[in-house]
Amino acid sequence: MATIKIFVTGGTFDKEYDELRGQLFFRETHLPEMLKLGRCRLKVDIETLIMVDSLYMTNAERKIILESCKKAKEDKILIIHGTDTMVETAKILGNSIKDKTVVLTGAVVPYKFGSSDGLFNLGSSLALVQTLPQGVYVSMNGKYFYWNNVIKDKQKGEFREIK
Amino acid sequence: MATIKIFVTGGTFDKEYDELRGQLFFRETHLPEMLKLGRCRLKVDIETLIMVDSLYMTNAERKIILESCKKAKEDKILIIHGTDTMVETAKILGNSIKDKTVVLTGAVVPYKFGSSDGLFNLGSSLALVQTLPQGVYVSMNGKYFYWNNVIKDKQKGEFREIK
Amino acid sequence: MATIKIFVTGGTFDKEYDELRGQLFFRETHLPEMLKLGRCRLKVDIETLIMVDSLYMTNAERKIILESCKKAKEDKILIIHGTDTMVETAKILGNSIKDKTVVLTGAVVPYKFGSSDGLFNLGSSLALVQTLPQGVYVSMNGKYFYWNNVIKDKQKGEFREIK
Amino acid sequence: MATIKIFVTGGTFDKEYDELRGQLFFRETHLPEMLKLGRCRLKVDIETLIMVDSLYMTNAERKIILESCKKAKEDKILIIHGTDTMVETAKILGNSIKDKTVVLTGAVVPYKFGSSDGLFNLGSSLALVQTLPQGVYVSMNGKYFYWNNVIKDKQKGEFREIK
Repeated sequence: MATIKIFVTGGTFDKEYDELRGQLFFRETHLPEMLKLGRCRLKVDIETLIMVDSLYMTNAERKIILESCKKAKEDKILIIHGTDTMVETAKILGNSIKDKTVVLTGAVVPYKFGSSDGLFNLGSSLALVQTLPQGVYVSMNGKYFYWNNVIKDKQKGEFREIK
Repeated sequence: MATIKIFVTGGTFDKEYDELRGQLFFRETHLPEMLKLGRCRLKVDIETLIMVDSLYMTNAERKIILESCKKAKEDKILIIHGTDTMVETAKILGNSIKDKTVVLTGAVVPYKFGSSDGLFNLGSSLALVQTLPQGVYVSMNGKYFYWNNVIKDKQKGEFREIK
Repeated sequence: MATIKIFVTGGTFDKEYDELRGQLFFRETHLPEMLKLGRCRLKVDIETLIMVDSLYMTNAERKIILESCKKAKEDKILIIHGTDTMVETAKILGNSIKDKTVVLTGAVVPYKFGSSDGLFNLGSSLALVQTLPQGVYVSMNGKYFYWNNVIKDKQKGEFREIK
Repeated sequence: MATIKIFVTGGTFDKEYDELRGQLFFRETHLPEMLKLGRCRLKVDIETLIMVDSLYMTNAERKIILESCKKAKEDKILIIHGTDTMVETAKILGNSIKDKTVVLTGAVVPYKFGSSDGLFNLGSSLALVQTLPQGVYVSMNGKYFYWNNVIKDKQKGEFREIK
């Protein structure tokens, strides 16, 4: 069984509530805890690249993600990413990466909130990265989208195909 | 987008706690609530066939599942099933169904318990039923298994390949 | 059994996560849902006065709370309030109200977050309002404090006696 | 601040789900975790006496509880107990203990289940043990009952006064 590389970049998925300041913030990724909850027995290698709200992700940070995907020895890669600019990062990756299966996912509600879609999306994405052919995909709302055919509908808070 | 048929048969996945009698029991499937939590936007058609602990599933009940899969007009089918005899049902289906993609999944802890793997497994399975070729599969522990190459390791409570 | 009046004024207790904008906001109080969860069989009458983050509570709003307590026909009153200025409101009430038992409580993490202290505090406060003599109290951290002998330690995020 | 003694005796409150056998069972009390969740800052001393479903509690076990209450140097005692025979234990304690405040509480749904009343009851009971006069009480459903004036209505799963 090949190892799946998981790159963490932040996003709502991993936000926590700071009870002293009453604000949302990042501490550490919740992925290990979530994989345990899912009784996941896949071989994964988790690496946190950055921890940002994707609204504020810079081009330099996107370049770090791209380079990390290129350098990874694994050919199955999952990226945890904020939903606001997930499509933008997918485009940059999609234009460059042709020989690996890369799946981007995230959540619209933090995992630590009771009402999060994070665990569902994590399950979907780990299945997709094992079964989809090489290419770059976005996985949200139970669906998967090819990188050049997806937008986030900000009114509805969900992803759909362009055409 | 083709509709995915979901057959509910019971299993730990859908067990609830009866606070008057202090026992676990079945009421209704939690699938609609879980799909909402996952912000799932797939077209699904949910049908409850039976509601049993799979330890006590009869041959007659397995036949109902098989016939329901055969008669379904959809060619992508997800089955929620208890883990104890999931492999047994998968074998019966696998021997007969060759022209549809059928994925069986379940949970080792009830969805209504905080520590359930149900939402993760549901995400995985819905992705698999969209991407795997025709055939019958078991989806547990983040992995998928072909129906004739899977056992449940009852000591560890997890699924693995036979060879 | 006498009815307990519950005034809702907002605070972290009732904050929710807006999945479209990625921010915390107020919608409706979660008190009915929480009382149901606690299998509470007390007679209560819930009234939402305002819905604000207590950091931004105005003097006019505090006056609304004071007048509402005075006018209430019940002599047992629970107030759900943000923790940041709970002590300030308690002082205004404590100086004026001598013939009723008034308990202020809140939460440092929203109820809808898995890690909230809200349900614990609600249980404590409803017990206190039934058992404490007339006067105004703050109920947090499993303790109760007389209105003129309590501060919030903002470093630790907890309440303690002044002396 | 005086220390509150907490005796754990089992009950639904502390039941967990055994994912290998699909049954409810006892492991360790969840009290420390629950007190942390409640941001409780009281001084408590937790001692597990027994871990049983109160339906099967023996007279010998009830005697252990009684003797432990008598020997405790603290005069504020909280007992976590199954609801089925909580009233019976309360009677034995009530007949003997006159110089301490003893509060019995429990839950109708295990704490580890999402829908538990445990945290609410824990909050209530810790408040009651601080404020009620000496004597033995049952604390459930947001209410408190004197030991000789309470029954469990098994049809409704709730506690009420006898007269």
